[in-house]
Amino acid sequence: MRITVLAGGVGAARFLRGLRRAAPEAEVTVIGNTGDDITLFGLRVSPDLDTVMYTLGGGINEDQGWGRETETHRIRAELAAYGASPDWFTLGDKDFATHIRRSQLLADGEPLSAVTEALCRRWQPGVRLLPMSDDPVETHVVLDGPGGPRVVHFQEWWVRMHAETPAAQIIASGAERARPAPGVLDAIGAADVVLFPPSNPVVSIGTILAVPGIRAAVAAKTVVGVSPIIGGSPVRGMADACLAAIGVDTSAAAVAAHYGPDLIDGWLVDDQDKSAGDDPALAGIEVRALPLLMRDLPATTAIARAALDLALELT
Amino acid sequence: MRITVLAGGVGAARFLRGLRRAAPEAEVTVIGNTGDDITLFGLRVSPDLDTVMYTLGGGINEDQGWGRETETHRIRAELAAYGASPDWFTLGDKDFATHIRRSQLLADGEPLSAVTEALCRRWQPGVRLLPMSDDPVETHVVLDGPGGPRVVHFQEWWVRMHAETPAAQIIASGAERARPAPGVLDAIGAADVVLFPPSNPVVSIGTILAVPGIRAAVAAKTVVGVSPIIGGSPVRGMADACLAAIGVDTSAAAVAAHYGPDLIDGWLVDDQDKSAGDDPALAGIEVRALPLLMRDLPATTAIARAALDLALELT
Repeated sequence: MRITVLAGGVGAARFLRGLRRAAPEAEVTVIGNTGDDITLFGLRVSPDLDTVMYTLGGGINEDQGWGRETETHRIRAELAAYGASPDWFTLGDKDFATHIRRSQLLADGEPLSAVTEALCRRWQPGVRLLPMSDDPVETHVVLDGPGGPRVVHFQEWWVRMHAETPAAQIIASGAERARPAPGVLDAIGAADVVLFPPSNPVVSIGTILAVPGIRAAVAAKTVVGVSPIIGGSPVRGMADACLAAIGVDTSAAAVAAHYGPDLIDGWLVDDQDKSAGDDPALAGIEVRALPLLMRDLPATTAIARAALDLALELT
Repeated sequence: MRITVLAGGVGAARFLRGLRRAAPEAEVTVIGNTGDDITLFGLRVSPDLDTVMYTLGGGINEDQGWGRETETHRIRAELAAYGASPDWFTLGDKDFATHIRRSQLLADGEPLSAVTEALCRRWQPGVRLLPMSDDPVETHVVLDGPGGPRVVHFQEWWVRMHAETPAAQIIASGAERARPAPGVLDAIGAADVVLFPPSNPVVSIGTILAVPGIRAAVAAKTVVGVSPIIGGSPVRGMADACLAAIGVDTSAAAVAAHYGPDLIDGWLVDDQDKSAGDDPALAGIEVRALPLLMRDLPATTAIARAALDLALELT
């Protein structure tokens, strides 16, 4: 079986761990969001790709969900001593090495897809990990203020400001000119099933879908999504702040309706959101309720298996 | 008093520590060799500038003479796990931060002189540290072999090969097109005294002198050098291998004769090399003998004081 997954960071990475357990024989291609990518201290950081790579490769910090295990923070302290900014983005020492290597290969002229493949040769994540695009796409957040609107990088809004200032708009800058990375459209076209893990529908999956060609390719397939919202709250992160920016309620049903029946065919919600199945806005989307908290690997494997079962049923 | 010093790495840095003690009120400008600079893992490394900066700023690894104190080597191990090369150049984690910061500022368009000034704002070395040039100069070593001559970067010959393969030629590539960094010629011109610490006469001081304009500016001043050779052996490093490449004997007298009376006015040798003062090849160079091993700060201070005393006497 060929499975293609559109992935953000922590939620996607954990889901993928369950998926590999649920379908160990499947060929899994992961299309990772790169809209969160940022250049820090002259080094290129791809948080979502790294979270997937580290999680599946056994190098993740399990407690925080991102970054490397048993980290130290000497480089960061040194850079602060040099007065380098920003000071609000935490990068551990081992993580820095990944960004040094990525930046070196990019400076040598390798596209991000080839760089990601090179990094994955070490980590052996057991999936094929592709960036959504080799072209630069940066998620920007427009904030209204007394002095007029201003634009910040998504990471600044998310990490430094904790998304506390409401976003007036979220823009995947450059997406309209970006081309899907080599292999992306083929992996979607060849997939038996496309899955949306419980990733952020706006700044993760939404950004991937904003790359011209990807949405149409996905829409042509059997697609099952896992709700990132349980009982009116994001399972993780601040997806509610992103949904508010695009005028979508923070509910499992509203997210499914936002994707729409043209895009997704099946939708997994938590037991407490079972009523979403009766929502007329979700006509044409098959809704299944089950425990959706990825509290451990068995629970996550059960969710992945349910997504696959529903997809096969809908094919 | 204004003192300008041409500096390589470890020997110069230790000498400078003595000089600051010997002449605490002096305005000291240090012109650092950048021919050893190398790009590793996409990051720009300036070993000699850093050794001076760390040593005078209190951040040096005292035992090895270069690199940072209390280092760890996590980044290096990570890069090796990614298959990044080379594996023969040791950079500690805290040291990496310096190279990240330097590379970031260079990528932002700052010249190396401005970058060095920015890094020194943290270290407060108590001297003004200038790179010899903002233009790229790389010391290359020509090696003869059965397959014909080949060229390696100085660091590869020095660090990886331990200078065991004889150098057929040592070339400061790019030096002929390099311009002295802003402030370099002024600092020499304004100096009451120019000093050569016991640095490598070929790949440290020789490289600095190869930048057009510097040799003539230095030759016009009162110059006192400290022999890097004691009793026929380099005090540190493998200067003999470099001297052999340019056909100069490994002796205190031969190095002074190599500089020549047009360039230097005074020359400090170790007591055991006292006879250099009788060498007819050193006519026109005032030779003084004293204990020249920089075994601790008092000994080093005495050497610096002797160099200054001789310079003032010759002015």
